[in-house]
Amino acid sequence: MSSYIELETRYRRLAAIGEATGMLHWDAAVMMPTGGADARAEQIAALVSLRHELQCRTDMADLFAAAAEDDDLSPWQAANLREMRRGWMHATALPADLVEARSKAGVACEIAWREARPKSDFAGITGLLAEVLRLETEAAEIKAEALDCTPYDALLDQYSPGIDTATVERTFAQLTEFLPDFIQAVIERQATHPAPALPKGPFPLATQREVGMRFMAALGFDFEGGRLDVSTHPFSGGTPDDLRITTRYDEDDFATGLMGILHETGHALYERGLPKDWRLAPVGTARGMDIHESQSLLIEMQACRSKPFIDYAAPILKDAFGGSGPLWDAHNLYGIFTHVNCGLIRVDADEATYPLHVILRTDLERAMLAGDLAINDLPGAWNDGMQRLLGITPADDKDGCMQDIHWFDGAFGYFPSYTMGALAAAQFFKSAVKSDSQIPAAIGRGDFKPLYDWLGENIHSQGSYLETPDLIAGATGAPLDPEIFIQHLQSRYLG
Amino acid sequence: MSSYIELETRYRRLAAIGEATGMLHWDAAVMMPTGGADARAEQIAALVSLRHELQCRTDMADLFAAAAEDDDLSPWQAANLREMRRGWMHATALPADLVEARSKAGVACEIAWREARPKSDFAGITGLLAEVLRLETEAAEIKAEALDCTPYDALLDQYSPGIDTATVERTFAQLTEFLPDFIQAVIERQATHPAPALPKGPFPLATQREVGMRFMAALGFDFEGGRLDVSTHPFSGGTPDDLRITTRYDEDDFATGLMGILHETGHALYERGLPKDWRLAPVGTARGMDIHESQSLLIEMQACRSKPFIDYAAPILKDAFGGSGPLWDAHNLYGIFTHVNCGLIRVDADEATYPLHVILRTDLERAMLAGDLAINDLPGAWNDGMQRLLGITPADDKDGCMQDIHWFDGAFGYFPSYTMGALAAAQFFKSAVKSDSQIPAAIGRGDFKPLYDWLGENIHSQGSYLETPDLIAGATGAPLDPEIFIQHLQSRYLG
Repeated sequence: MSSYIELETRYRRLAAIGEATGMLHWDAAVMMPTGGADARAEQIAALVSLRHELQCRTDMADLFAAAAEDDDLSPWQAANLREMRRGWMHATALPADLVEARSKAGVACEIAWREARPKSDFAGITGLLAEVLRLETEAAEIKAEALDCTPYDALLDQYSPGIDTATVERTFAQLTEFLPDFIQAVIERQATHPAPALPKGPFPLATQREVGMRFMAALGFDFEGGRLDVSTHPFSGGTPDDLRITTRYDEDDFATGLMGILHETGHALYERGLPKDWRLAPVGTARGMDIHESQSLLIEMQACRSKPFIDYAAPILKDAFGGSGPLWDAHNLYGIFTHVNCGLIRVDADEATYPLHVILRTDLERAMLAGDLAINDLPGAWNDGMQRLLGITPADDKDGCMQDIHWFDGAFGYFPSYTMGALAAAQFFKSAVKSDSQIPAAIGRGDFKPLYDWLGENIHSQGSYLETPDLIAGATGAPLDPEIFIQHLQSRYLG
Repeated sequence: MSSYIELETRYRRLAAIGEATGMLHWDAAVMMPTGGADARAEQIAALVSLRHELQCRTDMADLFAAAAEDDDLSPWQAANLREMRRGWMHATALPADLVEARSKAGVACEIAWREARPKSDFAGITGLLAEVLRLETEAAEIKAEALDCTPYDALLDQYSPGIDTATVERTFAQLTEFLPDFIQAVIERQATHPAPALPKGPFPLATQREVGMRFMAALGFDFEGGRLDVSTHPFSGGTPDDLRITTRYDEDDFATGLMGILHETGHALYERGLPKDWRLAPVGTARGMDIHESQSLLIEMQACRSKPFIDYAAPILKDAFGGSGPLWDAHNLYGIFTHVNCGLIRVDADEATYPLHVILRTDLERAMLAGDLAINDLPGAWNDGMQRLLGITPADDKDGCMQDIHWFDGAFGYFPSYTMGALAAAQFFKSAVKSDSQIPAAIGRGDFKPLYDWLGENIHSQGSYLETPDLIAGATGAPLDPEIFIQHLQSRYLG
């Protein structure tokens, strides 16, 4: 058997173990009674460490070396080899004791954060966070050497391979230049019209679920290949043939739950469209967290918060909830779904202010990793940044620098993917519409097939065949261009 | 680290992988959309083969040899070593190609059986069943050599360690001697009274579920440590701290669903009571399928089909379903729950006729394994046996020799555990009541604590510390005695 085939076989098994682990996470979030937590942690730890050991077997280096000499590989096999190698580099770059220390520090800090956040007790977790930061810094330096890049590049590569620090920096500078004044202008313009108002509930949860499933089906979600459930934090999990998305419902607000469902459906249908011939191979998986986010945001922000979609959805919603009166008009609902507002919480932010939340976090985590910002100075730097970028200051750290799990969990380098994804979404959507001008009208009839035909061909079926910049350029004819996102905002909010 | 500790560590991980696999099976039966089947099969296969490989590592023999010389082991550690070794012997006795062939033949035959059974097409699966039988015979012979026992002993040891063929033979001969005449007498006696009749439904599924959960709670089931769901084939899964039981409901018949729930709760609470200090160690797991079945049958047959329990349950059921009239009297319900009837289907059988179904299967599988019964002659032998033991003959193989999954799945040697469990249940219950005479009265108040105090101390907390005969003797002061089961039947049905 050739070295390449041996690697492919091994990675197929690693992927199956990874899928099994993902299902256990889904169950823990959706089904598991509280008493199962400790046992589940041990089950997952066993699978994770086993997967790591399998990937770090001593003969892997020889297999990769031999496979690199193989001239008979097809282009997809070569790309698969590149992606297997990427996974292997990340798995083996760090010494085992650092891997373990990093995992333990993240778990300990996250648990403490869950306790400390409601009390806004930042002082109570600075020690644990400092340890997480120390280990992330060390890991970034070691990986930077192995991958021949800067330490922050190495962290980015864990989540958004192919996107480097220079690109993030340039992109975020352009957004920082544009957004604050733009947001100010939008808010002023909004003030000249009557504010949109949410129809009064209650909106029965069962109805919200039914309506959500109806729109999921319109998007192309097949319920013989997936489920919709409830969890505290909505997410998209499962496998391409068994998609598991979750949402949460608020009896007084159908809008947030509905957009959550559409967002997660965007994630899920990306998984669904990945190349079936490369199932369980690294080249057959999603390109990265940035491209994943582009697919959820394309559906939620570009397609489903558009006027054509709201025109289509408004009478369905009115009918489903038995509503009456002008608050159910598409005009008012569109106002709700596109309202801009400077708030404290990232996950509640609209698409115009959201990038500023990400930019703040990216600046701060880079400063912390570089040793330029001490943990103790984080709350102050956060509040200064919020004031500068969004013009507001949190009353406490709970709604400030303690609001997101990422740092406490050790996920430094993750935040940029949200905004890189938003930009890619705008660019993909523009190219899709350029390629098939019927897409917006079809969306206005609840027909997503033309859009998904384009996404399937240009994004989903590509898996991880191309590096991210090549995927974007191949699909849209140009590198990632923040100007397209900016134009989208201008057109939607000031057009 | 001592060899024993190294083995303990390794088996802990194997157990965690096993628990993960169990959860994936639960999900497949309860939650998974149909589209997920292939991916799930691959995930489970990856975990099963990985677990097998880990258990067959080349240094295991040396570790077991060294641990056997360790004089410092506590009695529980020594028992744990014995159980680890048992698992290892079963895992390593067979050559890898036989393990794989056995697994594949079982899967192929089971799939064909699912198609063939509704059509009663026995001829269509004789080839696949012959292959399963050939491989089971080969595996039994190899394991017999490794374990120094007879081939059928080796198969029994996979499911009911500690119970040998001679015990099964002696026990089943005694039951065969007693049951047919006894059943005839019960049926004649039943005919002298008006037949019990099920109250007329429909019985809403939500109400059946609520009532089931109420009785589960009375039994001591903690819903922070487990769930009740629905599946086609009721089962008990999960882990001691996250018990997952399932049932199925029939809108026209609350009795079958309810007894199913109580039966599975008996299984679950055995798991719950296993020794916590030995979690994830082989000595901390259930003793065998026979003892497991004893715990479900003790709850269902001994406790919950008793007159005191029905007296307690009848008004609760009547109230929950809003019933009225004499059919809701405890007298009538007790008649339903203790009705004896010679039927074709094992899983629908009452406790008096059930052993005859098992005895038939045990005789036939022993004859097939010994080469004394050809596959083609199985339907005829089955029908002859049914006529001889139960006085009825199936109209077709669907309700005859094709009704159970076991043989088609390769589970030869499993059937005896059902009846050995029924006998042990009668013996345990008798000893429990002898030890605490308040148990029946407590059950009559829906209070299972006295019973579970005895079961916890004498059975559950013992895990696999003792071999099965010693567990039974330790708990009841005597070896397994079919006479106690016989007395139970005589007292309940002819008393």
